[in-house]
Formats: sequence, structure tokens, C-alpha cells
Amino acid sequence: MTDAHAIAGVPMKWVGPLRISGNVATTETHVPLATYESPLWPSVGRGAKVSMLAPDGIVATLVDERMTRSVLVEARDAQTAYAAAQNIHARTEELREVVRGCSRFAELIGIRHEITANLLFVRFEFSTGDASGHNMATLASDALLGHLLETVPGISYGSISGNYCTDKKATAINGILGRGKNVVTELLVPREVVTDVLHTTAAKVAELNIRKNLLGTLLAGGIRSANAHFANMLLGFYLATGQDAANIVEGSQGITMAEDRDGDLYFSCTLPNLIVGSVGNGKGLGFVETNLTRLGCRAERETGANARRLAVIAAATVLCGELSLLAAQTNPGELMQAHVRLERDHKTAKVGA
Amino acid sequence: MTDAHAIAGVPMKWVGPLRISGNVATTETHVPLATYESPLWPSVGRGAKVSMLAPDGIVATLVDERMTRSVLVEARDAQTAYAAAQNIHARTEELREVVRGCSRFAELIGIRHEITANLLFVRFEFSTGDASGHNMATLASDALLGHLLETVPGISYGSISGNYCTDKKATAINGILGRGKNVVTELLVPREVVTDVLHTTAAKVAELNIRKNLLGTLLAGGIRSANAHFANMLLGFYLATGQDAANIVEGSQGITMAEDRDGDLYFSCTLPNLIVGSVGNGKGLGFVETNLTRLGCRAERETGANARRLAVIAAATVLCGELSLLAAQTNPGELMQAHVRLERDHKTAKVGA
Amino acid sequence: MTDAHAIAGVPMKWVGPLRISGNVATTETHVPLATYESPLWPSVGRGAKVSMLAPDGIVATLVDERMTRSVLVEARDAQTAYAAAQNIHARTEELREVVRGCSRFAELIGIRHEITANLLFVRFEFSTGDASGHNMATLASDALLGHLLETVPGISYGSISGNYCTDKKATAINGILGRGKNVVTELLVPREVVTDVLHTTAAKVAELNIRKNLLGTLLAGGIRSANAHFANMLLGFYLATGQDAANIVEGSQGITMAEDRDGDLYFSCTLPNLIVGSVGNGKGLGFVETNLTRLGCRAERETGANARRLAVIAAATVLCGELSLLAAQTNPGELMQAHVRLERDHKTAKVGA
Amino acid sequence: MTDAHAIAGVPMKWVGPLRISGNVATTETHVPLATYESPLWPSVGRGAKVSMLAPDGIVATLVDERMTRSVLVEARDAQTAYAAAQNIHARTEELREVVRGCSRFAELIGIRHEITANLLFVRFEFSTGDASGHNMATLASDALLGHLLETVPGISYGSISGNYCTDKKATAINGILGRGKNVVTELLVPREVVTDVLHTTAAKVAELNIRKNLLGTLLAGGIRSANAHFANMLLGFYLATGQDAANIVEGSQGITMAEDRDGDLYFSCTLPNLIVGSVGNGKGLGFVETNLTRLGCRAERETGANARRLAVIAAATVLCGELSLLAAQTNPGELMQAHVRLERDHKTAKVGA
Repeated sequence: MTDAHAIAGVPMKWVGPLRISGNVATTETHVPLATYESPLWPSVGRGAKVSMLAPDGIVATLVDERMTRSVLVEARDAQTAYAAAQNIHARTEELREVVRGCSRFAELIGIRHEITANLLFVRFEFSTGDASGHNMATLASDALLGHLLETVPGISYGSISGNYCTDKKATAINGILGRGKNVVTELLVPREVVTDVLHTTAAKVAELNIRKNLLGTLLAGGIRSANAHFANMLLGFYLATGQDAANIVEGSQGITMAEDRDGDLYFSCTLPNLIVGSVGNGKGLGFVETNLTRLGCRAERETGANARRLAVIAAATVLCGELSLLAAQTNPGELMQAHVRLERDHKTAKVGA
Repeated sequence: MTDAHAIAGVPMKWVGPLRISGNVATTETHVPLATYESPLWPSVGRGAKVSMLAPDGIVATLVDERMTRSVLVEARDAQTAYAAAQNIHARTEELREVVRGCSRFAELIGIRHEITANLLFVRFEFSTGDASGHNMATLASDALLGHLLETVPGISYGSISGNYCTDKKATAINGILGRGKNVVTELLVPREVVTDVLHTTAAKVAELNIRKNLLGTLLAGGIRSANAHFANMLLGFYLATGQDAANIVEGSQGITMAEDRDGDLYFSCTLPNLIVGSVGNGKGLGFVETNLTRLGCRAERETGANARRLAVIAAATVLCGELSLLAAQTNPGELMQAHVRLERDHKTAKVGA
Repeated sequence: MTDAHAIAGVPMKWVGPLRISGNVATTETHVPLATYESPLWPSVGRGAKVSMLAPDGIVATLVDERMTRSVLVEARDAQTAYAAAQNIHARTEELREVVRGCSRFAELIGIRHEITANLLFVRFEFSTGDASGHNMATLASDALLGHLLETVPGISYGSISGNYCTDKKATAINGILGRGKNVVTELLVPREVVTDVLHTTAAKVAELNIRKNLLGTLLAGGIRSANAHFANMLLGFYLATGQDAANIVEGSQGITMAEDRDGDLYFSCTLPNLIVGSVGNGKGLGFVETNLTRLGCRAERETGANARRLAVIAAATVLCGELSLLAAQTNPGELMQAHVRLERDHKTAKVGA
Repeated sequence: MTDAHAIAGVPMKWVGPLRISGNVATTETHVPLATYESPLWPSVGRGAKVSMLAPDGIVATLVDERMTRSVLVEARDAQTAYAAAQNIHARTEELREVVRGCSRFAELIGIRHEITANLLFVRFEFSTGDASGHNMATLASDALLGHLLETVPGISYGSISGNYCTDKKATAINGILGRGKNVVTELLVPREVVTDVLHTTAAKVAELNIRKNLLGTLLAGGIRSANAHFANMLLGFYLATGQDAANIVEGSQGITMAEDRDGDLYFSCTLPNLIVGSVGNGKGLGFVETNLTRLGCRAERETGANARRLAVIAAATVLCGELSLLAAQTNPGELMQAHVRLERDHKTAKVGA
């Protein structure tokens, strides 16, 4: 059988527009979401509508960006591992040159390490231009590792990846040390919009956020995560824009905060680990090119600017869906009624998170 | 603009065959993987080849299945919350009837609770037939919650979902209490296959697994997870079979174990939180129907059997990709060489995890 | 050298009284705290004073109690492990008899298990009367394990403890499945007491609790924990009452909640894992006997009642110290000023947490 | 009642000697342990005996030291928080001066930050000489915070401690960013010592460590921890040397590694978060002075050297107890038999962890 050209056709819709401002982009844009879960579209759509009713819309602040890969080396003993770590930090400039020699775009911007027993984990941090940077980081790390094995005494190969990176696993390290784009989104929803569009109050949303997202996730044994369903929006957005959607694992580790400000609702989603690129794997597909172009992420800009724009749009999209679901869950039965209504319209629908 | 019928066409290939035995299915089957990361296909393919060289192939044991939803109620105080919890457990049979009254397939099979301050989280566990069961569980929980609010004194609505479920968030509770299908896969790779196909030794794989998956993830601050890249295989399989791929977040929390057994390699992947269904959202799409049928998951079987079959195939697929990547990472430079070779073949490729 | 009778003399003070009500004890009592950190005494003392100014004082609700030990067995394969688990659950009544045969006080009240690869972790839950129960649980588990190894086919000894118990390690399982006494404490502080004694407002305490205890701990990568310094009070109380103070590791995993209720402060500390006993190791020391007696925990009561009383007093003590520190941290400089004042009084002092 | 001079007299014994080498100290020393759990003494004693039978004894490598405190400030919005963070990093030298102005010993050696919503957590890292440094860090942070509030626009006081430090809570951040002394201990136990003194084999210890400490803790939902009972030894050592024993909470988060090296046992305990000092609170008590002096930690040395010596002795003590317990748990019934024997000797005893 020949299935070389087969595709999994995931239903996709553009929703919006949503309004964005902040330190990366000021724009109003629709966003594409590919998903098997059709209720996601109206849910994000409602949040987008809210964003258009706030003067500044969603203010998205990008506060960090880097891609990482950790290598693992075995040393003769801990003392040798310690000496190796000191050696590595002392030669940072030399290692930067190694990276420059193997990549046009990757730049080594930081090194962290940890020693356990006779094992040394070294976590390299790179800037990677407009690419999400998995490949660049791996190739640069491969070169760095080869260089270190040749020049640092007493160490031998452990692994090109020591899971201390960490890619597609839910851990604490990515949020603490940084991996991907770190974007904070904020939206101040006027009181009447809270009432009329979200059918709730700021106080109810703030209280639910504390109890469900902060406390409920904590009791469930969550790790650095407090949100209702970041994963849903990220999946839809990542698929629609050619991203490696397995990165929703760490991407879904983010924090929603909500405050009642005299009846207005301050609503914020922080996404410390957005792994997105405007170039690279998956970006050559026709619909991806089209989508990225429509999002304004294929424009002539300085290196990295298209990817940053993509990141803040992704983050703003997450806020829209998060706000809408939380508002719905403040009201008994609202989710179920929405479900039944959608069912009546002959659509299957999945509700909640 | 009309984009009602737009799709995101994710490239899809069938790889295999892989051999499966165990308490759910004995079969040899190809598996479909939809992904933007083309190196996934040969990687899983190599693991599949290994499975065909082992007499029993991948032995997949399903050890649990349930779907959950937690509701949150606010009580007057902790004493009232405690009384409510006792009340709820005492009326389990009555609550079972409530569920039977609102669903043909959902069956209430367990209740757990936790109290913090004056808040009561109640986690309902259901069997949901061949569906992954998100909707069923939510609708049944909505009915249960309504019933409880009417009949239990001193409590009021908190949320239809308290994040103690937990859906699409990486937590500890799902593994400990169960959510989705829990499948253990095991493969005994003969020594010569380890050498000839995987180009490594059992001892090297076992050692790498300890250092990278167990220790490295631990140091990264992981939660109930020790694997290299479960998320990659799950994403590809979920997209190809119409699953809600956001469930890779908890699905990726699983454990790889490897042992050197006199030169043979014992290799095992445990996936405690596989959320899959053979019916439900996304399953009506043409290619999904085709794929599920080809996988033998649309056959006439007892309720739930098609979903269980799908789960063990998913789990076996994960093992194939995990084995292949770990074996590659035991050898310095192998990943990079594979990458360069694929590049030369005019393909983009992402390496590692 | 002979040091058979040496002691480490930890400074100890009684502070209070504090007022307690709830489903275990209604009392006013001073509490003993042994610590090298002298600021702990006035800090807990201030909280105690607040408790006396609230009509019901601290309402302490005990919502669960059990002691656990997990054994680890190796099975031929996962299928055998699964069969063994089913076998074990099916013979619960028989296992209860095994426990009755080796202990007067231990009662088997629950069994949980988890399978990974070919390994089976079985977590036994016991009631253990007035003892914290470490020994009882271990001895009973030893008998159970011996019995299982003789009667369940295909399994062999792994470990008498598989760290799935979990003793003196910070994990999620103890809170989710229960270990030790689970006590919720609540205190409604009248507005004027908040102002006059705590020098703050309910709104400020509630806000600080969200930002520091819930969010700050989350960002730090905490696991099932949201409090400022439970560990301090537990250590002091455990040492003063002959407890195994290493159990502060899991004991410190608890949750503080605070709400502004029209200016009054609702303040609650939930301690899911209090490991305390009124009999057992360490309880025979003179000062411990004296302290337990003064706390009313050596009275003639039904089995277990003295330990439960001890647990709620411990939990109430924790609330006192937690409330006092949080209130102090709402005010810039207050901690430092307290420190300087104590220094001036020729005392060393450690501040904060 | 007057109890100003009361003490909790915790039974204390010196065990050993144990042999230590490495980058901080080469010594043979007994160690004091204060505990209510008497089996701890022979357990550590057996490990100490093993250390004396290895030529280099326990090789202890100190790989990091720092004390931390995080402050929390509220900004007008995320953009202001981001600007504040940049401002703070740019003025590191100025902040160092602030610290020098308020402390003789504290030195600011690092700054990390994290932004969530409009909140900024700033984590200051200090060297603190021979003190554990809680107070120094808090006082310096208080000065820093005051300075920042006066000089950085758009921010206001949140908390002197934001739980991002993190003190006495089990989190991931301390291990990843460093807090306290980070000490790696290693011991190569000759095969015949494994057999004769530990009554086991290197292979059995290595296997148990993987299954119990690495896997079992992982399944329990542990965070950055893989050991059997670090907390027991730390508690005993901390109490005997006047440390703030509540720091066993994070101290107990460490990693045991074991390998079979041709029949010899490589055994290593890594303790990333040892919080100890040879001066400060609790160190003025007579028995503490005596103990520190006997340990050689009150000698004339360069600043910080006594505390480092104390840290490696603490870490070596932990290794002794960990090794002994793991060895015992490789043998069915050994723990119980030890218990029964101790009981027969009219002593109460607690077993295991």
C-alpha cells in the first residue's frame, strides 16, 4: 500500500478577531485552530470578542526566550565532574565559538549544570532566531559535546540528551531556568463586559481561579501549573501553524491569575514555555505557509521577530479560551447546556477540562 | 471568508508491522502516525522491526481503565464538608442510579474525595465503554452534582471541574488513582537483535535509562515520569486515530524500564494514562474511520473491547519509538548522523527529545 | 568515652493558651515547643492569643487517619503482577486475619497497588490505635509480605519498603491516598482582632496567601504544598512530645487558605499528613510523659482518642504560627523590626520562612 | 508556671568513627546523632564501619554553596515587572554595595527572577560565611527590598518572602538553582565488605536502589528525591549540632545512586540542600559547642571552612545510614529480625523508612 502522501485532516477554523498589544505586537487578528473538539472554536471566539471590548485588548509581554539541550557526561568521580563543570564555565567564550562554527543562527547564551554522583548534566541555552530551535540546539550540543569530550579530562559520553533539557516532559526546570518563549498576557475586562458577554462577575472568576486552578491543581499533585485548559488552545494553534505539537506537554504548564478590581476583571495567563517557530519543520506545508502569512509571521522583520509575534498571538489565543471556560464554570450547568445545544445542532462536542 | 471546511493536513504514514500479544490482543499490525516530524516514522519503524524479531513481540497488559471528573463544592465549614463526604460515600448506590439515568454507557465505579479548608473535591470514576469518556464523565458529573446540591445539606456549587480530575494537566493523581487506560508493555529483545538492529548492548540501554529517564527527569523536577519521548508517539497516534491529542499531556507521564538479562534486553514502557476511544468526537472523519477499521478497532466486540485494543496498540507504538531513540542515544553522534543523512535526502528532520 | 546517657537539650517553652473546638476536642491548652529558633515562641503565642479572641477558637476537624507501608514484589512479568494484584485484593479478608495474628492494635483497612513493568507495589493501610504506627505497619507488612510470597504464584521479594508508603519523603501520594492524621483547622478572626492584634487586614492576608503560599510555592516547583512555615511549628511540637520529627518532611506539605469575609479573616490550615502518637518510641522519656499528660493526651479514652487529640492540638499550633507569620509579612519591615528588637534583648533570633 | 529553662532532652550518641576524604576535609571522626529512634545509631554505625574498610573512606565533594531569600513585589503590570527585572539585573553591583552596607559576612553572589502576571519574584543568592545564613539573607533582602522599592519605578511591596526562596518546603527550585551546601558523597565498598559487613551483594543494592529509591519515589509523586531515609540522619545530626532541623524538609531531597562495579559496590549520596552552620542560632548551647568542637568545626580556619567541614561530615553521616538501610532491605526479614532483637533487649525501636 502506498500512503506516502496521506494526511490526517484535522478540522480547522479561524476565530476572532482578537486584539493584542504589548512589547512585541499591536494587532487585531483572527487565529487558526485545528482540533477534533469543535466547542473550542466558540469558546476561544467568546474570549476574542471580550478582547475587542477592552481598549488595549490583550497585553502580551514577552519576558524571555531561549532553547535548550542538556548533555550528560560520566566522570571518573564527583571531584572530576566538579572540575569539568568549572572548566566548562571558564571556557564559555570558546564554546560560543564552537556553536558559531556549526550554525548560522544558534547562539550560545547560557550554561547551567548539575552534578549527581559521578554524573554531570550540562544544559546549554541558545537563541535560535525564528526557529523553535530543537534541531539547532541538538546539533550545536552535539558539536559542544564532541568538543568537550576531546578537551576536558576524565569525562566520557553519557547521552546527547540527559532529560535535563527538558523536551516534551512536564518538569519544573523549564519554567525556572527558561525554555522557549516566556509570555505574560493580561486583559482588563470592564465590569459590563464581564456581565454581558461572560455572564458572570469578576469576584466569581477570581474565586474559581483560586479554588480550581491554584488549589485544585495543587491537590492533584501538579507541577508548576495552574490553569484550566491551556493544552486545548495550544494544540489547536500548534497544529494550525506547523509547530511540533508534542511541546504542548510543557507548554500546558502555565499560570492563570484573576483579580476582582472594583468589578472589573483582571485576567492573566503566563506561559513560560511556548515552543514556536515561524520557520523549520512543518512550516513548508501549504496551509501552514498560508496561516503564518495571514498571521503576519512571514513578514520581513529582524531575525526572531516573526517567531516572537507568533508566540504572543499563541499566548493571547490561550487567554481567550481560558477566560471563556473559567467564566462558564462559574455558573452551574452552563457547560452542560452548551453541550446539549451543540448536540441539538447535530454536532458532537466535548466539554470542559 | 469561508473556512468552515478547512483542514490542517498533518502528514501521516503507516509504519510496521509490529507484533503484539498480551491480555487484550494478539496481532500483527501496522500503525498510523500523523506528525510534522518525519524522523518519527523510521524511529518507530525500527522498534516495530525489533518487535517482529521477538517471539511474543510486545506483550501488552492492560491493568486498569476508568475515566474521571472531579466536582468542587463549597461547604459552610470543614465539618460540613466532612459530613458531606461521608454522606456521598454512604449513598454510592443511589449515585450509581443517577448516572444510569443519564447515560447508556457510563457506569459509576468509584468515588474519592479530598477536603481542604471548607472545600470538598469529589472525584467520580466511571467506566465509559468504547469512548474515551470525557463527555460522558462530564455529563454524568453534572447530573451527580445537581443531585448532591439538592440532597446534601450545607454545600453549594463550586465548579463542575475542580482540576482534581485531572484532564490535560501533568499531575500525580491520575497515575495514583487511575485515569484512562493503564497499559504495561514489555519486550524481550534477543541479544543478537540488540546488536544487529539496535547497534547497542542491553547493558548500555539499561544504564542510559537509569541516568537519563529516571535520574535526569528527576533532576529536572519531573512528576511521575521517566521516559525519553512518549509524547511524540502519542501525538502521532492520537492525531491519526481521531483522539483528543491534548491528552498527551498526561499520557506522556509514563515510565520506561530496561534491564540487561544476560545480554538480552528487557524493555518495558508503562503508560498509566492512555485516554483513547474508538467512538466519539473526531471518530466520524473519513480517514479516522479508515484507520480505526484497519487497526481492527471497529469490529464487533463486547463493549469497551475496541477501545482496549486501541489502547494496547497505542502503547506498543510508544514502546517502539522509545526503544529506538534510547538505543540511538547510547551511541555518540548517531542521532546527528541520522539527521544529516535525512537532510541529504532533502527532508527536514527534527532529532531527539 | 561513655555517652550512653547524653542528651541534646533543645530549649522548650509552653506557649498559649490556645482555644480549640471541633470533632475531636474542645479545650483551652498551652502547647510545648522545643526549638533552637526562639522567635517561634512569640509567633505562635500571638496566634494563640488570636484564637482566644474568637468564640469557637480554632475549629479542628479530623477527616482521616491511617498509617501505611508499601511492599515491593517482583513478578515474572506484568501479567503475573496484574494477576497477583487481583489475587491480593480478592483475599483482603484473609490478609486482615494475618494482621490480626501479629498485632493487637494494627487493623488492615485498605490496600492499593500500582504496577510498573514487572514490579508490583502494594500499599497497605492500617489503623494503629494511639501509636503513630510506623513499627506496627512495618511488622504487619512483613507478615503480609511473607504470607503473600508463600501463597501468590510468580512473585518474589523486592523490598519490605518500596518508597510508595511514603515515609519522610515529600511526595503526592500521602495527601491523595492518606497517611497519618488529616486535620483541617479553621479560625474566623474578627475584624478588630485582625487590626489590633495582627496589625493587618483580612484582605491583605488573603492576597498574600494567594501570592506567596499558593503561587510562590507553585513557581518554586512545590508538590502539594502551600504554606509559609508549617515545618517550624511541627518540629517544635514533635520534639516536645516525643514524636519522630523526621515526619515533618511530609507533615510540612499542607495548605493554608485565607479569605476576607467582610473584613473578618477566615484562616485555615489543612494538614493531611500529621504523623503523631501518644504512645510508642520516645514517649517514655520523662519530659515527654509530662508534656503529653499536660496536653490531656494520656487520659483514659477509647483507643486512638489520645492520639487524635494530640493531632488536633498539633494542627492548631501550626495554624497559630502560620497566621502570625503571614500577618507579619503583609507589613514591610515588620519581620526585620521584630528581629532587631529581639537582638536588642540579647537574644539571637531567626526570622521568617 | 515557669518553664523558661525547660529543655526537651533528645537522646544523643556518638557513632563511628567514619572516614572522610575529598575537597573539604580528610578526617576520621565520630559523629553525634540525637534522636528518639534508637535503631538509627547501629544503622549509621554499620555504615561508618564500612567507610573505615575503604581506603579513601567516603569521598565528599562540595560542589556549591549559597543561601537565598526571594522577595515579592507587585508591579503595575507585567511590562513594568519586566522592566523592573531588567533594572535590577543591570544594577547588580549597586545591590552588592547595599548588602555590604548591612552585613559583615553576607555577599550577594547571584540574582534570579520570575514574572507571573504582574508579580515579580526576585531570588537573591548570598554567601554567608560560617553561618547557615537564614538571618543574614533575610536582613540583606530586607535592605535590598527597601532600596528597590525606593528606586525602581512602578513596583510596590509584596512580601519579604515569596516562597520562591525556598525555606523548609520541598520544591524543585533549591536543587536546580542551589540553596545551602551541595555535597556529593561517594564510597567504593570492596566486594568482601559488601558480603561480610553488609550481608548482601553490590548487584542487589544497585537493583533495590533503582526500584525503591528511583522508581518507587517517582511513583509516589516525589519531587527531586530518590533516597530511603536521608531525613533520619539529617534530623539526628542537625539536632546534635544546633542546626535548624526544620531544614531537613529540603535537606531530605537528595539522590542515592548505586552501581555494581565488578562485585564492588559504588555507593553515592548527593545532598544538594544541606543547610548548616558552625555559628549562629543554637550554636551557643553548651553541648552544641562541645559537639562542634569535637567535630573540628570550631577551629581557626578561613571564613566558611568550618561550615563546609560540617556539611561534608553531615553528608557522610547520611551516606552511612542510607547504605546500611538499603543493604538491610535487600534481605527479606532482616529489618524485622533486627527489630525483634532490639525489642528483646528491652528497647523500643522503629524500623525502616
